[in-house]
Amino acid sequence: MIDVQSFEDDREIPLTKVGVKQLRYPVRVLDKANGTQHTSARVDLFASLPQHFKGTHMSRFIEIFHRYKDDLSMPRFLDMLGAIRDALAASAAFGRMRFPYFIEKRAPVSGLAGMLSYECCYAGRVGEGGTRFTVSIAAPVSTVCPCSKALSERGAHNQRGIVRVELELGPFFWIEDIIDLIEKAASSPVYAVLKREDEKWVTEHGYDNPKFVEDVVRDVYAALRSLGRFPRFTVEAENFESIHDHNAYARAEYAGNASAA
Amino acid sequence: MIDVQSFEDDREIPLTKVGVKQLRYPVRVLDKANGTQHTSARVDLFASLPQHFKGTHMSRFIEIFHRYKDDLSMPRFLDMLGAIRDALAASAAFGRMRFPYFIEKRAPVSGLAGMLSYECCYAGRVGEGGTRFTVSIAAPVSTVCPCSKALSERGAHNQRGIVRVELELGPFFWIEDIIDLIEKAASSPVYAVLKREDEKWVTEHGYDNPKFVEDVVRDVYAALRSLGRFPRFTVEAENFESIHDHNAYARAEYAGNASAA
Amino acid sequence: MIDVQSFEDDREIPLTKVGVKQLRYPVRVLDKANGTQHTSARVDLFASLPQHFKGTHMSRFIEIFHRYKDDLSMPRFLDMLGAIRDALAASAAFGRMRFPYFIEKRAPVSGLAGMLSYECCYAGRVGEGGTRFTVSIAAPVSTVCPCSKALSERGAHNQRGIVRVELELGPFFWIEDIIDLIEKAASSPVYAVLKREDEKWVTEHGYDNPKFVEDVVRDVYAALRSLGRFPRFTVEAENFESIHDHNAYARAEYAGNASAA
Amino acid sequence: MIDVQSFEDDREIPLTKVGVKQLRYPVRVLDKANGTQHTSARVDLFASLPQHFKGTHMSRFIEIFHRYKDDLSMPRFLDMLGAIRDALAASAAFGRMRFPYFIEKRAPVSGLAGMLSYECCYAGRVGEGGTRFTVSIAAPVSTVCPCSKALSERGAHNQRGIVRVELELGPFFWIEDIIDLIEKAASSPVYAVLKREDEKWVTEHGYDNPKFVEDVVRDVYAALRSLGRFPRFTVEAENFESIHDHNAYARAEYAGNASAA
Repeated sequence: MIDVQSFEDDREIPLTKVGVKQLRYPVRVLDKANGTQHTSARVDLFASLPQHFKGTHMSRFIEIFHRYKDDLSMPRFLDMLGAIRDALAASAAFGRMRFPYFIEKRAPVSGLAGMLSYECCYAGRVGEGGTRFTVSIAAPVSTVCPCSKALSERGAHNQRGIVRVELELGPFFWIEDIIDLIEKAASSPVYAVLKREDEKWVTEHGYDNPKFVEDVVRDVYAALRSLGRFPRFTVEAENFESIHDHNAYARAEYAGNASAA
Repeated sequence: MIDVQSFEDDREIPLTKVGVKQLRYPVRVLDKANGTQHTSARVDLFASLPQHFKGTHMSRFIEIFHRYKDDLSMPRFLDMLGAIRDALAASAAFGRMRFPYFIEKRAPVSGLAGMLSYECCYAGRVGEGGTRFTVSIAAPVSTVCPCSKALSERGAHNQRGIVRVELELGPFFWIEDIIDLIEKAASSPVYAVLKREDEKWVTEHGYDNPKFVEDVVRDVYAALRSLGRFPRFTVEAENFESIHDHNAYARAEYAGNASAA
Repeated sequence: MIDVQSFEDDREIPLTKVGVKQLRYPVRVLDKANGTQHTSARVDLFASLPQHFKGTHMSRFIEIFHRYKDDLSMPRFLDMLGAIRDALAASAAFGRMRFPYFIEKRAPVSGLAGMLSYECCYAGRVGEGGTRFTVSIAAPVSTVCPCSKALSERGAHNQRGIVRVELELGPFFWIEDIIDLIEKAASSPVYAVLKREDEKWVTEHGYDNPKFVEDVVRDVYAALRSLGRFPRFTVEAENFESIHDHNAYARAEYAGNASAA
Repeated sequence: MIDVQSFEDDREIPLTKVGVKQLRYPVRVLDKANGTQHTSARVDLFASLPQHFKGTHMSRFIEIFHRYKDDLSMPRFLDMLGAIRDALAASAAFGRMRFPYFIEKRAPVSGLAGMLSYECCYAGRVGEGGTRFTVSIAAPVSTVCPCSKALSERGAHNQRGIVRVELELGPFFWIEDIIDLIEKAASSPVYAVLKREDEKWVTEHGYDNPKFVEDVVRDVYAALRSLGRFPRFTVEAENFESIHDHNAYARAEYAGNASAA
């Protein structure tokens, strides 16, 4: 059967990435409390394509990912990329897998349990020039505005925000521990279920800990840096401002000791 | 040239709607302050299809809409649907046009100007069984939680919310006036630009006017009903809760005097 | 502790729906091949609110849903709504749960396996005036344009489309069987993984079965009607036209024998 | 009035970006056929924040952007960033403005006119280390699969795709000319309105020009490179495969003569 993808290509233009996007797949990842967790992912998989090939065989990406779907711990994700690279004889393979990660969380006073969802993303590269792997984790939080509190005789505007960290992998870590660190840096965590005694606690706790997006980013940054485990990371915070229809945003980047303040 | 769409169909299944979706078009609508306003719309256009036709001629929808794009006042939108109905010899034509409507708004104390965007939608039907036209308008607002305020010794959680009304058309009205009515029913309007003196005002004004989503819906409902201009309407409010990662929601429906409390 | 939600309200405006939206939860549903399936859902839960109450207790929705999350077969979903209705002493409770449903599917010639995702939604109402439950299922398909094929000397434009049915519940059915019925009504199913021999089959099979969105809707409609199991249903098809940047759409509604042609 | 943002910060963590996101604004940009074009934009604006300041004054971003909204040609966009940098005394200011750009396009045979929308984005940086400005332009196209055509006895699968280029600014250019270049590299352009004679043309023209995503990327790349006007650019193509529920993707990067093949 004719194999058009393997035809010679004489345009002399190498492609940095060729592959599949927006694949939806059920996957299993590690879970600190329960061993493993079932979730549903959106997956992009790519390989580099040398200039002399016309196309890549895109079915291979899916065939290989399918074999790994039931155990996508971080090291296995890199193994999967390695298998793609080998199958396609590519100089590098790339992949990204976004998924909601669910954690059962208890209300701060009543102790009632509900599930919260945290958007996570594995992103990796395996190939010539080395392996690279980052995990990003996004946690919803609550922030109270320090300026509004300082200016106003009563109340202070506050809002839901989202904090996202992207961590370059060093030693093993639990997603749960990073989420915990993020929530401690906000004015207050958010919860799935809150009774009145909990709502009072969250309101007062938040009011006592006013934070700009700038503050949240710096406090998460300082906490991550003090762990000393991640060679590089970025921290972003975005507030869905309650007094505007746009968002407030801040970002910091850590690139190792050289650039640390 | 062969016309497959006009073939006879013997499956005896009439289609309630056939047409085009997700058309993006630049349009011009009426503007209270400036005469007309340029904006960009997403448009869906449909006609009913009798059981004996195999298909509709979808290019006609676009040809006709294109002729109307520079003047899409509410009556002209219905004229456009009438033209589609005639061109396709359909028993009814339907359409929906969603667009951001921009208003320049001044901060409450400093008076500084910024633009705010309000998602609007025209939805109409022209045909056997009569004409129907509704306009929906969504306004971002700020709400302060009455429960949190009552329970807490300091502060009160608050958040951005969105209030959407859908109005069945009676006499002419300005979108601006409905937005004004919605904003008055919230704890506070939101603004594009706020200096410190404005932020103090918004914070204190909101704190002095705590509202559940239920309250906002009822106050908008009462204000719309008292206008006595809309034969039917619905009101929805959705709060992006600052203490949760989900939203709070309420909805009321007015169906004329018969069902009014 | 003060309970603001239970305050009397004298605005005399009943709310048709009050509740929570955009809750993200891990859930388990029935699976024909594997017994049960883990997936992740977006959930909206509401109750009606009589005019004399100021607000509802939104934490109850989550508390109750949390208890049901590990077994959300269709009857259990209605039980869950019944429990919400009881807990809130509401005249009616409403709910909607959207989730990707995953099925392992084999390529038509090579037999290679990959997962496909089908967006499903349970929507129910329990209360005065009866129980209502619908399941909607959306399947991606491939369609070849009959007009393009008839007019052109070679080729025919084709595209990915999505077919969505909404079924009012009668006797038990498997989601898998409905998907199978939809795919048979398209020009061709789509697949996660296709080798060259499969791609040839899909291309030729699609070319031999050209279908407008109108045809797909009618053929799904006829197949569902002939099952005689669903008291009411709707069928929609939307094509991501390869020759346009907008979509083609058709819809039919079945409301029992009275309205059947 | 107290100015919390100007407080000293001793955490010694500089922020790479602080600002506002998801601002929606009506703007005016240059238009080859009509002089200027009104459209609606989503805007993100940032400045760097030195480590010794606690926060930035976010209202300034909006005040300044508001003054520029009626003339956002590419050079004026950079002027606007310069004004932000000055107002905030920041070492750098950054901005991104995404907007649909509308072009009236005529069907290839009938000559009928319809509007098409192209997603564009200006992205700039003004500050220490120099000025950087890129424009990205995304055009929907139609692609016919060469593999499917070669393997199949009749037909060939085809689909809508999207091609996006990101161009680092050299001399002035028209968005229209880049779109024209992209459309020529696809199997066929897409259109808003097509009569039967046009549909025949598009089908046959596409069938005669089969292209993988890899081919489209390479042909756009070669055409851009031969213009010799852009110091750096990237080209991406994504196909909404008609035989899959995921997309095919390719990307190439041009970084000047040194890296050109």
